[in-house]
Amino acid sequence: MGDPAGIGPEIILKSLSHMPRLRCRVFGSLGVFEREQKRLGTNVDPSCVEDVAGQFGVFKMGRAQRNCGAAALVCLEAGVRELRENRVSALVTAPVSKEALRMAGFKWPGQTEFLAERLGSKRHAMLAWTPKFKVVFVTIHEPLARVSRYITSAAVTEKTGLLNQFLCDTGVKRPRICVMAFNPHGAEFSLGEEERIAAGVDRARKAGIDAVGPVPADAAVASISVTRPLDHLTARLLPRFDGYVAMYHDQAMIPAKLLGRDRGVNLTLGLGRIRTSPLHGVAFDIAGKGVASPGSMLAAIQLAQRLGRR
Amino acid sequence: MGDPAGIGPEIILKSLSHMPRLRCRVFGSLGVFEREQKRLGTNVDPSCVEDVAGQFGVFKMGRAQRNCGAAALVCLEAGVRELRENRVSALVTAPVSKEALRMAGFKWPGQTEFLAERLGSKRHAMLAWTPKFKVVFVTIHEPLARVSRYITSAAVTEKTGLLNQFLCDTGVKRPRICVMAFNPHGAEFSLGEEERIAAGVDRARKAGIDAVGPVPADAAVASISVTRPLDHLTARLLPRFDGYVAMYHDQAMIPAKLLGRDRGVNLTLGLGRIRTSPLHGVAFDIAGKGVASPGSMLAAIQLAQRLGRR
Repeated sequence: MGDPAGIGPEIILKSLSHMPRLRCRVFGSLGVFEREQKRLGTNVDPSCVEDVAGQFGVFKMGRAQRNCGAAALVCLEAGVRELRENRVSALVTAPVSKEALRMAGFKWPGQTEFLAERLGSKRHAMLAWTPKFKVVFVTIHEPLARVSRYITSAAVTEKTGLLNQFLCDTGVKRPRICVMAFNPHGAEFSLGEEERIAAGVDRARKAGIDAVGPVPADAAVASISVTRPLDHLTARLLPRFDGYVAMYHDQAMIPAKLLGRDRGVNLTLGLGRIRTSPLHGVAFDIAGKGVASPGSMLAAIQLAQRLGRR
Repeated sequence: MGDPAGIGPEIILKSLSHMPRLRCRVFGSLGVFEREQKRLGTNVDPSCVEDVAGQFGVFKMGRAQRNCGAAALVCLEAGVRELRENRVSALVTAPVSKEALRMAGFKWPGQTEFLAERLGSKRHAMLAWTPKFKVVFVTIHEPLARVSRYITSAAVTEKTGLLNQFLCDTGVKRPRICVMAFNPHGAEFSLGEEERIAAGVDRARKAGIDAVGPVPADAAVASISVTRPLDHLTARLLPRFDGYVAMYHDQAMIPAKLLGRDRGVNLTLGLGRIRTSPLHGVAFDIAGKGVASPGSMLAAIQLAQRLGRR
């Protein structure tokens, strides 16, 4: 369900009403779903809801509240339990408010780290998935001024390996991977980051992965949008890549939002299970207004379904 | 001419052959242009060339060389002199190699700073111009780990003001400006940058500029590509903006390359004169091969022509 004060319940119902034959279980609150369904006029069979959060008290739409965080956590716990015990083939998580989770005693940086711990995963990564652009993050939620220190050759090799494995698993033969530079123009303004990235790429290549980098990030993404053979900077130099490795959040998310529109999916790699979520947050500012797009949630469910079938 | 060992002469000739009626003067080397014209098979009237660099000696394509840097500098000096003395309505500069310029004794960080000094400009800014996306840079060529310290409220106000002035000058009535956040999600991971940006935006607003921010950069660009009213995160929250203010190079260049394809233009604001250049470098790796796209140079010339007419 995610945070009930956010757009989670709304985009779940909107998505499920587009997929009437989907076999799924929604870990949430029946009360919330029935009220939301009435408001939206959707017609989703309420028997899919497992009422794990039940009646958790009064709350207001559009703000972080302790009881909403607690309800989101109960749902997340239920989902991950089913996933761990292989009673579901994939888990899709709706947006949570980190603030509300923290109020409810949640100790992890985010849902991903929580899932990794519960599923016993040591090496995991966030992938932003869009049809045209798949990008894995070396760092995610860090102040940008501190990112430099987290860029190690080991981290670059690890994330590149996880991306390569995912691409192979989804049928790409000998994936080509582009690892982005951290600095403008790459090496020209490096304070050591580009050398560490290069060492990480080198190690990935020695492990048989077809990776190149560091490639200045603007040139790396330019290769995606090439529509004419004119683009001298990219079309000849950079063949298209099957996946990208970004050093920080916005370096991945800016192109993901531009190329994925509202259909981007957050996919966690390295869990040994399928877990997706929409590529956006609780959107408190529009919660309860009925205007939220289900695009990203729908794409997250469809991707989970497709990957869970394998 | 830019650096003769790069793609400058090639893209100039290719561009001019698309614009046979353009009134222009090319500050360069007649020898270089005649050899290049022969190789490319273009048919540009050589009388447009002012042979300021003349015979500057033997050089190899595709690498930084002292005599090429010196030749590029002579051309730049000639261009800026004509601009300062109002004998041309606009200056378009071709790509230079900073390394070659440095070998030839050039002391400025780049052409822009050189031009600013020669034209007596104290406040200037780089704008990446594309039809759909206009973005001004608060910092340009700095190691990313050091950018935080250059983000001051004064810099944000100044760059926002220069962008606003440009937009007004080009006919936008009451421009709407979006100022990007520095950190992922904006305030959530701020080490003080977002507060300084907010103070800068505040001061711009008090000066009558319709600016908002800091807006997380991925949400800011998502508003550009909205094609359907579905995009809940942006379509309702963020009206379209006439211009953007980015905190660092890749934050501006990633969307500029994606949205501008190979038609992006580098425009210098605050010089009191029109100066454009292509949004790419010397491309030494493909210099002399005849495969360079003139797209960005052509767009730079066309924009200079349009702005110079006012």
